[in-house]
Amino acid sequence: MIRAGLVGVTGYTGMELSRILASHPSMRLVAATSRQDAGKRLDSIYPFLQGLPGADVVLIEPDAAELARQCDVVFLAVPHGVAMETGAELYDAGVKVVDLSADFRLRDADVYEAWYKEHTRKDYLPKAVYGLPELYADEVREARLVANPGCYPTASILGLYAALKNGIIQPDDIVIDAKSGTTGAGRKAAVSSLYCEVADTFRPYNIAGKHRHTPEIEQECTVAAGAPVTVSFNPHLLPISRGILATIYTRLTSPLSQAEVQAMYEDFWKDKPWVRVLPAGRLPETRNVRGTLFCDIAVSVDQRTGRLIITSAIDNLCRGASGQAVANANLMFGLPVETGLNFAPLVP
Amino acid sequence: MIRAGLVGVTGYTGMELSRILASHPSMRLVAATSRQDAGKRLDSIYPFLQGLPGADVVLIEPDAAELARQCDVVFLAVPHGVAMETGAELYDAGVKVVDLSADFRLRDADVYEAWYKEHTRKDYLPKAVYGLPELYADEVREARLVANPGCYPTASILGLYAALKNGIIQPDDIVIDAKSGTTGAGRKAAVSSLYCEVADTFRPYNIAGKHRHTPEIEQECTVAAGAPVTVSFNPHLLPISRGILATIYTRLTSPLSQAEVQAMYEDFWKDKPWVRVLPAGRLPETRNVRGTLFCDIAVSVDQRTGRLIITSAIDNLCRGASGQAVANANLMFGLPVETGLNFAPLVP
Amino acid sequence: MIRAGLVGVTGYTGMELSRILASHPSMRLVAATSRQDAGKRLDSIYPFLQGLPGADVVLIEPDAAELARQCDVVFLAVPHGVAMETGAELYDAGVKVVDLSADFRLRDADVYEAWYKEHTRKDYLPKAVYGLPELYADEVREARLVANPGCYPTASILGLYAALKNGIIQPDDIVIDAKSGTTGAGRKAAVSSLYCEVADTFRPYNIAGKHRHTPEIEQECTVAAGAPVTVSFNPHLLPISRGILATIYTRLTSPLSQAEVQAMYEDFWKDKPWVRVLPAGRLPETRNVRGTLFCDIAVSVDQRTGRLIITSAIDNLCRGASGQAVANANLMFGLPVETGLNFAPLVP
Amino acid sequence: MIRAGLVGVTGYTGMELSRILASHPSMRLVAATSRQDAGKRLDSIYPFLQGLPGADVVLIEPDAAELARQCDVVFLAVPHGVAMETGAELYDAGVKVVDLSADFRLRDADVYEAWYKEHTRKDYLPKAVYGLPELYADEVREARLVANPGCYPTASILGLYAALKNGIIQPDDIVIDAKSGTTGAGRKAAVSSLYCEVADTFRPYNIAGKHRHTPEIEQECTVAAGAPVTVSFNPHLLPISRGILATIYTRLTSPLSQAEVQAMYEDFWKDKPWVRVLPAGRLPETRNVRGTLFCDIAVSVDQRTGRLIITSAIDNLCRGASGQAVANANLMFGLPVETGLNFAPLVP
Repeated sequence: MIRAGLVGVTGYTGMELSRILASHPSMRLVAATSRQDAGKRLDSIYPFLQGLPGADVVLIEPDAAELARQCDVVFLAVPHGVAMETGAELYDAGVKVVDLSADFRLRDADVYEAWYKEHTRKDYLPKAVYGLPELYADEVREARLVANPGCYPTASILGLYAALKNGIIQPDDIVIDAKSGTTGAGRKAAVSSLYCEVADTFRPYNIAGKHRHTPEIEQECTVAAGAPVTVSFNPHLLPISRGILATIYTRLTSPLSQAEVQAMYEDFWKDKPWVRVLPAGRLPETRNVRGTLFCDIAVSVDQRTGRLIITSAIDNLCRGASGQAVANANLMFGLPVETGLNFAPLVP
Repeated sequence: MIRAGLVGVTGYTGMELSRILASHPSMRLVAATSRQDAGKRLDSIYPFLQGLPGADVVLIEPDAAELARQCDVVFLAVPHGVAMETGAELYDAGVKVVDLSADFRLRDADVYEAWYKEHTRKDYLPKAVYGLPELYADEVREARLVANPGCYPTASILGLYAALKNGIIQPDDIVIDAKSGTTGAGRKAAVSSLYCEVADTFRPYNIAGKHRHTPEIEQECTVAAGAPVTVSFNPHLLPISRGILATIYTRLTSPLSQAEVQAMYEDFWKDKPWVRVLPAGRLPETRNVRGTLFCDIAVSVDQRTGRLIITSAIDNLCRGASGQAVANANLMFGLPVETGLNFAPLVP
Repeated sequence: MIRAGLVGVTGYTGMELSRILASHPSMRLVAATSRQDAGKRLDSIYPFLQGLPGADVVLIEPDAAELARQCDVVFLAVPHGVAMETGAELYDAGVKVVDLSADFRLRDADVYEAWYKEHTRKDYLPKAVYGLPELYADEVREARLVANPGCYPTASILGLYAALKNGIIQPDDIVIDAKSGTTGAGRKAAVSSLYCEVADTFRPYNIAGKHRHTPEIEQECTVAAGAPVTVSFNPHLLPISRGILATIYTRLTSPLSQAEVQAMYEDFWKDKPWVRVLPAGRLPETRNVRGTLFCDIAVSVDQRTGRLIITSAIDNLCRGASGQAVANANLMFGLPVETGLNFAPLVP
Repeated sequence: MIRAGLVGVTGYTGMELSRILASHPSMRLVAATSRQDAGKRLDSIYPFLQGLPGADVVLIEPDAAELARQCDVVFLAVPHGVAMETGAELYDAGVKVVDLSADFRLRDADVYEAWYKEHTRKDYLPKAVYGLPELYADEVREARLVANPGCYPTASILGLYAALKNGIIQPDDIVIDAKSGTTGAGRKAAVSSLYCEVADTFRPYNIAGKHRHTPEIEQECTVAAGAPVTVSFNPHLLPISRGILATIYTRLTSPLSQAEVQAMYEDFWKDKPWVRVLPAGRLPETRNVRGTLFCDIAVSVDQRTGRLIITSAIDNLCRGASGQAVANANLMFGLPVETGLNFAPLVP
């Protein structure tokens, strides 16, 4: 049984990791940290875990040495800036690390600093692998430090990858209109995330080039295209708990039929069971991936305007954060990537 | 007191008209038709109306002659195809008509037939005025037949108008990513509109040039631009009851600052109080217009990609249908357009 | 134009007062206080107000003397404990006061102190009138200090009143199972009120005699019955923003038919248009009173078990707080109670 | 691999069975019937199943002989009345049957006929076992026909059982105030179940002795008490998809402390891991059981009024229908009851 630790248990990604590890056949939560709740049992803050594996873990103060002693792998579910320090300490202590923050995702420290803040652990960037399993499984298997992808980037990159790799769309004319459930805003007490501020309404935020997931998307899309990719990324807040749907507007480099693009996508992803290319005529929906690692993708050619419109849906918490983190840990320990992760979507 | 009739009371636009007329100081619902509920009192199908004006109207079978006898104006809240016949009959009977369907919105019958079905009352198209009050108030005042705009077109056209009129965006590179509340799907019994099929999920539909509001948007945008406008219109279904938010991606014809576009929009709409251009840095939200005629618009220049992103929010039922219909009726009877319509948004 | 002030603008009751006063024909918001937002315009914290009356009020620090100078009436939308002090100061400064907190609702200071905390302004209790307009309109007209009823008590008392007054139910065997929308939990930043903690779930809280609205309900029910009434009051949190529905289980003192109880209720409330006794066979629903002062009541005799089950629905924010406060202010200034308050319910 | 059939796939219980069987290690969906969708693949009506076990099942017309040939067990997810006929035919054909309808739940055919309709297969009632696994596991193991309990009865009976069995509450003074998610209303196209008729509202229905789950609750509670039990059962509709919470008001036969009742409940259920008695001070919540077989129960003694208030939460679709059906099938085939059913709750 692989012993897992969790730094930062009180957020939604920590909650989701607790859920996933409660039914994992080969990995068990053995340590979890929280400054505010140290001393409490995990099921006292998450009553849904009562009676399940992990429920009796007693929360401790963050302590890298102690975590390294108790754990084989540690998941970091803390804000960027904090994660880079803790991640480096744990790495040095010899424990495997999966970081759910943005701190090790951008290979170029200058880009990180342009969008986030000063990076104080730049020397660890080359050690980190970007943990999108469909793209980097081999590298993740060898890694001791995995940068778990962001939620919006996961949906966007998987949606765009086949088109960019095959060169069928213009790399400088991409608009991503993304919509996310409210777990994406985190579990901190904030008026803007209150039920009565989110329910029965809908709003954009950080549009027109202000969201920090932009460079992460551009980094991986550039790898796919083999040429610089610029995207206009525009997020919106949905009155749902889980789920991201990205509607991606691209321009075809030359005319292609619906059937041609459909065949290309189905072929590209045929060996990756978590990426489900939907049959022509069907469109993704966030509930169809709820609680799972699936990424549902549809391609729609708009003949009137010469565009390829890609729609892509994931569960932002599971695929976009904690489930993907466990997939990466599976790979790091030589397990099949899907171990403990083949949930059927909870619908409705 | 102006006597109003309503054909097709059981849908959401009929319900909303009942609500609005219940507090109108100069217009009263005196007749309403419904095949399935004829003989019932209005408040027996809409209990929220108990004790309010209109509650005691007894529903009758559709009958143009009878409606013309009892009413000064009739609102048509029936599907397209049906509306063109009833509208023509009522017009001939001398009563003023506001049609909430699509039947008289498209000036070119060929375009109508390409997107909808055969038009059997083409000769009435020249008599109809497109009832977007900010654009056509003078014409509506003289009209006896008003084609009430669609919900998506109202949000899209108002959002784009100032930019197109001022020629600052390319008319052939416009993408509208629109999201609508579920009242937009109507009140017919359909599995796809059930609570458990809509709540806690999000999905696109009819994307890539398939939605019939496309030609209506292009028609009015072409008027604004003075040149043919092509849009890629892509709708999504929101788990909310009321509200549309359109995120409109356009390309600037030449570089403009945020402040320049902001000033242009504020100036363009300064005499139209229902169009609220939001201060720079603020973005619209569907709840801020709930239950009202407001259209909230923000302009965001994306310097990285040379785009102007326009966000526009309305209440699809009130501004996008029944409230706008009453505004048009106000104009047709010489009342101030805002009579009985200055609701404050119901937030939260 | 009556000049109104508002202490504590950032909560949901303050927000709702802003909404209501924006369309009131004879009362205008002229001053509002907020420690955290002093210096800002009201529409910068409540963008839905842009362009409406009150939007340009600049928030100030709380200051009783200044408020008394600028206002004819002040609404207190601050927590209990704070309200008693501010209320007393404003009263002494000669301004009329409507207090939305619990501080002046309980006539017996000992009861207050048993359920809340020390009462430091007991001498003002006799000056206060309990502001349930259907029961105390005459007293409110003469009052300078009105204790605005709690939300749960408003629904419960109005539901029970006719039965207790007529002596048809046992006063010591009453169970109230109440369900409230989340605005009832306030607008403070708290994890337990986050969207993702409230949406798509349902939970009881403070059941089995722990909720502080219990003595308020018992106080007024005892007045109705003319004998001590004990209730078991049990609240639950609904994933909706507005609305309370109370299901009240009582035991008939002697057998009565459905028709007899129905007739008794209809007769009792026939002159109070905001209390709508529903026809036999119809049950209340929170949306039917949304945004209004209505209290919808149904009576259901359960012949199998000898119980009378009363269901009662209000909008907790409008009828249960700010709308009722404005109704009381109307009375205090000699206006018809319904002035500016005859909204039609916003459905759906 | 046990071969399972499903009659009536298009409802929510059929959908949930499809989900559960998709990850069951020893049971596989091999046949499913639907009149309206015969000929289609299962994942064409339930896209969430794409790529999962069962997705490629092609729906057939209902045909008992064919089902008996292909299956070891058949689940009936069809309305009462239909189920009794199909169930009897399948029973005679030698296949095991789990009936999710009410047709075989009531041991007394007269009671069935008083609440439902004529029972045309009375002779099968003695063959049927009431499939509440905590109470009847031994009988279910021997059964060929299992009557799967109703959703409300499951929550109510499990909540009341320990108290009735121990004789601490009065059997003739029980009120159940139950609240259910909207999947409980089924997946048929009906205006009253539309998103816009259920979202952001709350309503009672069939209160005061009108709901047909009443006799089922009374039947099993009478077994527990060893004396006739009468309940007043009163349901409400929640704007959530899944989940039932029952608040049960009972009167203690003699004074007991919170600790005494708590200890009694913990002891009674200590060997049944799906029944989670919550620690004192914690109350159940529907999300904590989402997607699982758990029944969370809290006991709260109200000293002021001498009542024991029991709160009980289940997932109406999983525990209250399809998950419980699979648990019963597990027992019928000699598998551990929890096989394939130990989901962790999906929170949030």
